[in-house]
Amino acid sequence: MTLAHRTRPEGVSAEAVVPRLDAALEEFFAARPDAGLAPELVGEISELSVLGKRVRPIFAWCGWLAAGGAETGPESDAVVRALVALELLQVCALVHDDVMDRSTTRRGRAAAHVAFAARHRRLRWSGDPKHYGDCAAVLVGDLALAWSDDAIVTAGLEPAALSRAWVAWQAMRVEMMAGQHLDLLAGARREESLEQALRVAALKTAAYTVERPLHLGAAMAGAGPELVEALRSFGRDIGVAFQLRDDLLGVFGDPGVTGKPVGDDLREGKRTPLMSIALGLARSAGDDAAAELLRDCLERRPVNYRAVEAVLVETGAVATVESKITALAASAVRALDDAPVRPEARSALLRMAGRATDRRS
Amino acid sequence: MTLAHRTRPEGVSAEAVVPRLDAALEEFFAARPDAGLAPELVGEISELSVLGKRVRPIFAWCGWLAAGGAETGPESDAVVRALVALELLQVCALVHDDVMDRSTTRRGRAAAHVAFAARHRRLRWSGDPKHYGDCAAVLVGDLALAWSDDAIVTAGLEPAALSRAWVAWQAMRVEMMAGQHLDLLAGARREESLEQALRVAALKTAAYTVERPLHLGAAMAGAGPELVEALRSFGRDIGVAFQLRDDLLGVFGDPGVTGKPVGDDLREGKRTPLMSIALGLARSAGDDAAAELLRDCLERRPVNYRAVEAVLVETGAVATVESKITALAASAVRALDDAPVRPEARSALLRMAGRATDRRS
Repeated sequence: MTLAHRTRPEGVSAEAVVPRLDAALEEFFAARPDAGLAPELVGEISELSVLGKRVRPIFAWCGWLAAGGAETGPESDAVVRALVALELLQVCALVHDDVMDRSTTRRGRAAAHVAFAARHRRLRWSGDPKHYGDCAAVLVGDLALAWSDDAIVTAGLEPAALSRAWVAWQAMRVEMMAGQHLDLLAGARREESLEQALRVAALKTAAYTVERPLHLGAAMAGAGPELVEALRSFGRDIGVAFQLRDDLLGVFGDPGVTGKPVGDDLREGKRTPLMSIALGLARSAGDDAAAELLRDCLERRPVNYRAVEAVLVETGAVATVESKITALAASAVRALDDAPVRPEARSALLRMAGRATDRRS
Repeated sequence: MTLAHRTRPEGVSAEAVVPRLDAALEEFFAARPDAGLAPELVGEISELSVLGKRVRPIFAWCGWLAAGGAETGPESDAVVRALVALELLQVCALVHDDVMDRSTTRRGRAAAHVAFAARHRRLRWSGDPKHYGDCAAVLVGDLALAWSDDAIVTAGLEPAALSRAWVAWQAMRVEMMAGQHLDLLAGARREESLEQALRVAALKTAAYTVERPLHLGAAMAGAGPELVEALRSFGRDIGVAFQLRDDLLGVFGDPGVTGKPVGDDLREGKRTPLMSIALGLARSAGDDAAAELLRDCLERRPVNYRAVEAVLVETGAVATVESKITALAASAVRALDDAPVRPEARSALLRMAGRATDRRS
């Protein structure tokens, strides 16, 4: 059975929470007594968080609803305030990742470290503009990370709900950071295995973007272990599928829609499952030229990116990744089959799964 | 009246908490279920935190005792567990600052970014070793920052105590980061004013090292506003004095005792109050050669560091800083005079003040 068959228009809409999230984010910034101490850092956090797509808080809201959390009322308001943390943590992840990956654009604007370096250059400040930009971006991420914890702790959750939420929250942060470190290590060690690339996707994306947000929301609602396990299993599959889709969009997406220049992943030598699969297929087909081209690309040697794109299609890697996405989506749906998910929330979860795996941006 | 006159051997010893802090830190690491996901990052945090001098947690413990917190019993155990957060936050501050200041050593060993870069070079990994080292160090700091929040939230504090503590804790983190950013900006903008240098010291050191730790401890014990204000005022003075002492040690200290090579501050062009005072004194004495030498040093141009040291003494800057330290220590003591500090804790506070302002490492 496909996702489309299972998605019904009735039930709750998880996306309906977005205006409440936006308002809670705005309130969070307004309530920072110390924001004036570091206006440049705060400005960057605020601009970046406004532009977020709210993917993680929406998944967390799905987890909350799936476990029987109320859609309205004071308890739900506290949960919405707590979910602001996910957008702030994402600002930290993006800003620090952009420094590490030397990315130049983010959400359709200059990456934080690039903007700070440009300011340094424009004002003819002393020292190395690039170093200044990197340092200021590290501080932006640090402050966003500290504020993400503030958002949960000061949300007004019941103490027991805060304790339960923290189990998911602390795991999410470690997994996100460990995933980023493994990603760095994969580049440094010239890792080519699919297994390693999938491990990075499982930590850096699946756990951080879907599995733990669902867990977080469900934990706040007091979900039992059976439901938490089903949601996490659903989240792991959807999350890896989300990353595989992201990798395809990073090479073949429409930059006007994704907000990132196409080919950035190739230029950065990103060791995605897509590249590992292509390398494996090229090798088993005895296509040395294709394998060489892919390896050159991973090593960031100058290559013809159009030729790399062609190899990704011709080896069958793109088709393999597409069928992996389909299989993961199906496995995700099965994980929910017998789970004690509140019926009205089931369709919201399936819609989110569809959006994550079948999107264009 | 001097500190020595007011320090009496009776009363509680704040330092007695150190073995309990060490044990709590060890327990914290043992209880991280996810530590195996990022062994290199965790190893760095663990080694650095073991070497800490526990300055901040001891001040926080003083605040707890001053406000009537119990020295023993389960409530005090939870407080000790929460204070582990201060050592972990300090690991983040040190590791990120070392990247920003390009420092090469820390606590008598290679700075984290240097150690990671050396590993990359030794194992002949792919890419730029320096960039890898910086990235890994950013992640070490991120994880230490996230764990510092975990330490407070999971310490087992009463919910009301956690809420009160968080007010001080969130302010401390913002002030620390804002101070570091102002420090960066001071270098970039070639700031020479004493006012600006003291503002950095007030945020980056006084608030972060003394004022807010005292506030944190007192808040956990439910201190009233009068006591909190007295402790914060004491902490601001002692904290700035601590930084002024640090600046003197950074130029004239014994590297075998401080664990940092002498002259690092000069080589890094650090814009300390000491340098601002020397510049002001050189200018008002019409000593253009001395002013030029100091400015060259701040701009990191090659200079004779011995000559800079001589100028710092001969302009009278060192003597001025010494008398500022004395005046701040006296003002700090006055702030406590009429404060409702628990008598047994008063001597502990005064001893800590003496240690902070009159130390050799």
